[in-house]
Amino acid sequence: MTRIVDPSGSEPGPATVARLVGSVRSPSGLTEGAARAHLDGLAKPPGSLGRLEDLAVRLARITGPRPRPLRRRALLVAVADHGVSRRGVSAYPREVTSLMCRALADGGAAAATIARTVGTEVVVLDVGVDADTSDVPGIVQRKVRRGTRDLSVEAALTAEEAAAAMDAGASAVRSLLPDLDVLALGEMGIGNTTSAAALAAALLGLPAERLVGPGTGVDGPALESKREVVRTALHRTRHVADPLALLAELGGLELAALAGACLAGAAAGVPVVTDGFIASTAVLAAVRMCPPAADYVMPSHRSAEPGHGAVLDALGLEPLLELDLRLGEGTGALLALPLLEAAAAVLRDMATLADVGASHPGMGDTA
Amino acid sequence: MTRIVDPSGSEPGPATVARLVGSVRSPSGLTEGAARAHLDGLAKPPGSLGRLEDLAVRLARITGPRPRPLRRRALLVAVADHGVSRRGVSAYPREVTSLMCRALADGGAAAATIARTVGTEVVVLDVGVDADTSDVPGIVQRKVRRGTRDLSVEAALTAEEAAAAMDAGASAVRSLLPDLDVLALGEMGIGNTTSAAALAAALLGLPAERLVGPGTGVDGPALESKREVVRTALHRTRHVADPLALLAELGGLELAALAGACLAGAAAGVPVVTDGFIASTAVLAAVRMCPPAADYVMPSHRSAEPGHGAVLDALGLEPLLELDLRLGEGTGALLALPLLEAAAAVLRDMATLADVGASHPGMGDTA
Repeated sequence: MTRIVDPSGSEPGPATVARLVGSVRSPSGLTEGAARAHLDGLAKPPGSLGRLEDLAVRLARITGPRPRPLRRRALLVAVADHGVSRRGVSAYPREVTSLMCRALADGGAAAATIARTVGTEVVVLDVGVDADTSDVPGIVQRKVRRGTRDLSVEAALTAEEAAAAMDAGASAVRSLLPDLDVLALGEMGIGNTTSAAALAAALLGLPAERLVGPGTGVDGPALESKREVVRTALHRTRHVADPLALLAELGGLELAALAGACLAGAAAGVPVVTDGFIASTAVLAAVRMCPPAADYVMPSHRSAEPGHGAVLDALGLEPLLELDLRLGEGTGALLALPLLEAAAAVLRDMATLADVGASHPGMGDTA
Repeated sequence: MTRIVDPSGSEPGPATVARLVGSVRSPSGLTEGAARAHLDGLAKPPGSLGRLEDLAVRLARITGPRPRPLRRRALLVAVADHGVSRRGVSAYPREVTSLMCRALADGGAAAATIARTVGTEVVVLDVGVDADTSDVPGIVQRKVRRGTRDLSVEAALTAEEAAAAMDAGASAVRSLLPDLDVLALGEMGIGNTTSAAALAAALLGLPAERLVGPGTGVDGPALESKREVVRTALHRTRHVADPLALLAELGGLELAALAGACLAGAAAGVPVVTDGFIASTAVLAAVRMCPPAADYVMPSHRSAEPGHGAVLDALGLEPLLELDLRLGEGTGALLALPLLEAAAAVLRDMATLADVGASHPGMGDTA
């Protein structure tokens, strides 16, 4: 993939991000009321498809009453390392990031396996793995740096590095346009629940205790030291409020890439399906930079990570699946795609009450 | 579809059911321990796919570690009317049963619409609609009678009628063999939450209050009269314990057909995906007649109907989806099929830790 050069000819920076933010427009599909009325006219008791109807409403606000089938589906998995992983915040060593990056591209990782079952192309984006992955065909090379700096002692990224990672994610999405029907977000990076916990806590104004969880499986003293790392980082950045500045301070590169991807998807009018705690925190950062992007985001699951609920609440998203997933890679987003496709089909293809010759009891009543 | 004639040459009856029950064998796939060990050797933190792993274990007990892709998928929607629908227990008139039976066959009903998105053939079985549906191509004609008798005053069915309905469901499944990979269950029948509530209460020994809910949308005095109908029926049948006798007493024809379908699926080693309250109650009746069948049943969703949880608990099923669906038709079962396919793919296709060159922290430790 060629780097998208800024129209000004300069390297990506905050101005690139500002242009990306400015490219997102509010959706022009149905209003919520019109979408509900459409659904209530279909051959089923009103509301009887429960939260599938809420999902259909969310989709119809983007697409109108006749969404296209979700033919071209892509999962963007952004991968990067974290300076903070040297602090013992993960159960796994840093080297696992590059191993799993390869497994995602080779097709043996969980997300790659599940993606095949839901007809979804996987785009693996190396935006900051601390190893050379260029020998693996299919890994998109956009390494900004070999992992972030240690967020507990200094800014994980400069503003320019964060912007470059956002641009890498946005470019990866643009390379899939114009015929992309749905974008799923995923990530891999040892140490990234620590980065996401710090970023989510800072964006939401919540204490570390609310956002730090076991990630891939730390507990006991390791979990306490993870909390302490996040507390230290939050103290260091206590006067920072700008979401791009916080994204730079607390990282990581894959979170920034997903924030950029989310905005590029929204700018193109493509529904963007979030995943677990880390991807959802990246989406939250994107939405804080660009509130209209929120309308393009579709929920998927609530992960086992305890901070995920607070992030989803802030995004106004009700998860569709609660399967105690705690793997990332976009696995939860992939599992939600059939639900989104079903919601699209209900909107587009179901018979109306008139078609089947029925009516609702008490139709027209206020009851 | 030709009627499967009993080998003895007689009409279906309790002896037919006994032979069906006797044809189910315990599954011969992996033990739970072997399935967990297989999953723990894959390239992911142990248990990180959460309840998708529980589903994979359930599947591997039937199929072993390399399940086939779920290529041929069928949804059997059994449709019938209920004598008790004359008692005002539903928000909709009886005529809606035949209208929706047609819409299921025509492809405009919710389940037919969703089935197309998950590559599933819909088999609509008229086992007791109180109208002639034979003019609609694609509706399998196995009407046992035009609706049940009123379960609040007399036995809904004779034992022979219940057995005939079970045989109709079993025959519909047999007509899909041998290359059926998964069977989803669904139903339609105005009044059938009343029948299912009575049957579930009787099978579980629970009071009407625990099992009766709004169904398609009754409340207030109508809901109270629905409870009273169930109480009366439970009192009438208080000395009946045999599950086939209870199925006959409390109906309905579509529940009996699904019970037979469940047993025929289990006998053929096919995973059977249950749906909401009514389908799950039919499955419970089948499992009470034939305990080994329980191992072939796969969960799907927990519906909005309050009695569903008690039935799922009795079946040992943890629902995968909680979307407040209350439509029936097999909609929840269909939405769970991609999760089952993903679980199958994880078992069959994921790389092992050794493949990717990684190991788990503390592997071999007891921690």
